[in-house]
Amino acid sequence: MASLRLAVDAMGGDFGLRSTVPASVLALNENSDLHITLVGDRTAIAEALRSQSYDSSRLDILHAKDSVAMDEKPAVALRQKRESSMAIALGLLRDGDVSAVVSAGNTGALVAMGCIIVERMNNVRRPAMCAPIPSDNGHTYMLDLGANTECVARDLAQFAVMGSALARVIDGRAAPRVGVLNIGAELIKGTPVVREAGDLIAANPHLNYIGFVEGGDIFGDGVDVVVCDGFVGNVALKVSEGVASFIRRRLQAQLSASVMGAVLGMLLKPVLRRMQRANDPRRYNGAVLLGLKGLVVKGHGGSDVQSFLTTLRQAARAVSVDLSRQIAAELAEENPPTPVAQ
Amino acid sequence: MASLRLAVDAMGGDFGLRSTVPASVLALNENSDLHITLVGDRTAIAEALRSQSYDSSRLDILHAKDSVAMDEKPAVALRQKRESSMAIALGLLRDGDVSAVVSAGNTGALVAMGCIIVERMNNVRRPAMCAPIPSDNGHTYMLDLGANTECVARDLAQFAVMGSALARVIDGRAAPRVGVLNIGAELIKGTPVVREAGDLIAANPHLNYIGFVEGGDIFGDGVDVVVCDGFVGNVALKVSEGVASFIRRRLQAQLSASVMGAVLGMLLKPVLRRMQRANDPRRYNGAVLLGLKGLVVKGHGGSDVQSFLTTLRQAARAVSVDLSRQIAAELAEENPPTPVAQ
Repeated sequence: MASLRLAVDAMGGDFGLRSTVPASVLALNENSDLHITLVGDRTAIAEALRSQSYDSSRLDILHAKDSVAMDEKPAVALRQKRESSMAIALGLLRDGDVSAVVSAGNTGALVAMGCIIVERMNNVRRPAMCAPIPSDNGHTYMLDLGANTECVARDLAQFAVMGSALARVIDGRAAPRVGVLNIGAELIKGTPVVREAGDLIAANPHLNYIGFVEGGDIFGDGVDVVVCDGFVGNVALKVSEGVASFIRRRLQAQLSASVMGAVLGMLLKPVLRRMQRANDPRRYNGAVLLGLKGLVVKGHGGSDVQSFLTTLRQAARAVSVDLSRQIAAELAEENPPTPVAQ
Repeated sequence: MASLRLAVDAMGGDFGLRSTVPASVLALNENSDLHITLVGDRTAIAEALRSQSYDSSRLDILHAKDSVAMDEKPAVALRQKRESSMAIALGLLRDGDVSAVVSAGNTGALVAMGCIIVERMNNVRRPAMCAPIPSDNGHTYMLDLGANTECVARDLAQFAVMGSALARVIDGRAAPRVGVLNIGAELIKGTPVVREAGDLIAANPHLNYIGFVEGGDIFGDGVDVVVCDGFVGNVALKVSEGVASFIRRRLQAQLSASVMGAVLGMLLKPVLRRMQRANDPRRYNGAVLLGLKGLVVKGHGGSDVQSFLTTLRQAARAVSVDLSRQIAAELAEENPPTPVAQ
């Protein structure tokens, strides 16, 4: 399959080349259909590749003289970083030279550059970051996770379509259950935007809408796709990471408080390691930027080799099921909801 | 101290009298300064008290012929439930017969009735639910947790003043570090409301403002008071509960997957129980409704005896430090920020 070509923003992420290069080599070695273009500083990449063994016919290096810093303002990056590894990788995607871009770089810059370079799908007002969150269900897809702070109801309704398509295409779920994230107190059952989004989604015959869900439901087994604006989604994601690591710290502290605890802790280590690998959102990794004319997959900024490898696998899988085209088809099919004043 | 008088909405919460009555008896028995008025169905309360032993001179029953259901619409409760245990308890507070009301009942109804019956403090546009969230720091106060879905910057700035006063008064922290909950992506560093709230809080010389914090920071040791709107706060709270119980389920599943695991699980039980007691937000319990002219403390709807007892203790503690008056004083002292168009 010649079309399984990924462009990797080799300079992105907190660990840059130290994660992206070894992860790319591992991905190439486990998947003989895969071709990777590493975009970034040619000399540094060559240096990072030196001790690695891989099929060089399936790995290219494309030089980029610049890179986007993790804390750079997206607007500034857009103006000044047209020669960055991120921008050049996205250009490859726009030109059809690769099937997907994978980056662990600056999220805001990736969204902004994605919209300008790769462009939005027809009728998509806002792209959304979507990632699988560990749950009793295996995982629940949640979107948006931070590409948009403020959304109108129509945006949330589009997120529902895109998220549902993702769950269908990636996991083969026939009729993914879609919920709108809301809060419980009756007085204030949601904002007008959330209520209106619920109405729009309920009116879409292509969606299996189950109504409002609460924050805790994300981790249960009652919903497959949870829709929210990017502010709430990002807070929810960071809170879930924060709680998981807080509980880990607490358990550690409890276990090291006594000799018996220390012994228990040693015995428990493999269990905890297994749990952490399976459940920690940080390691679960990989958010898809949905709504662009090409596939952009975002790894966690703090991606280590293993988690960037997971992201590369997710990207390869998404390419192999032609995710981007399938979502475009779903969006085209979508019954346009009655226009509403916003 | 004759003024340590609490009114308990005996009918509120998922378990109603089964939680509120035994917890009230335990509270009376551990604190000889305490006086409790149980408000609710006289016959049912008397029945629930029958097997209990307590100092009857410090316990009254006030009959209420009605109660607010947990799923009742607050607007409906406001109109139709003036004779409910919740409304009558709040009336005792308004009339100065008690120093605080404690209820595990319907949050929305409690907020709505609180505003009408107890009334807001001068200049407070919106009351806020505030609770301590377990953290490396002991706990972090977070508000609003669901009394308001949509807030203007001025509301968030008032929450900051009230939360800071709470941390100072309850925990004796001299200059509580206040943060505004925000998200990381640079493109969209917060909504206009959040950014403006940050500016207002920064301009208040009475507050120790440390800037924006992210969802994960709530559980660390870098911030004492986190301010957000009630929609985001409620989602964050429910997510944190959801993740904690998801991790518990996962650990359980891992431990029951092998004989070795089962043995480990048995040995671990006391550790896990201790952790759960200390860290589970559901058990931590007790949110204060800040911004009313009297002290209203809300227990979790799912409060069992132990957690309702915790809520009663929190209420007694808040009364003993005269929380409500201290917050009113802080609000009066607050430098009114320059008026802004909203």
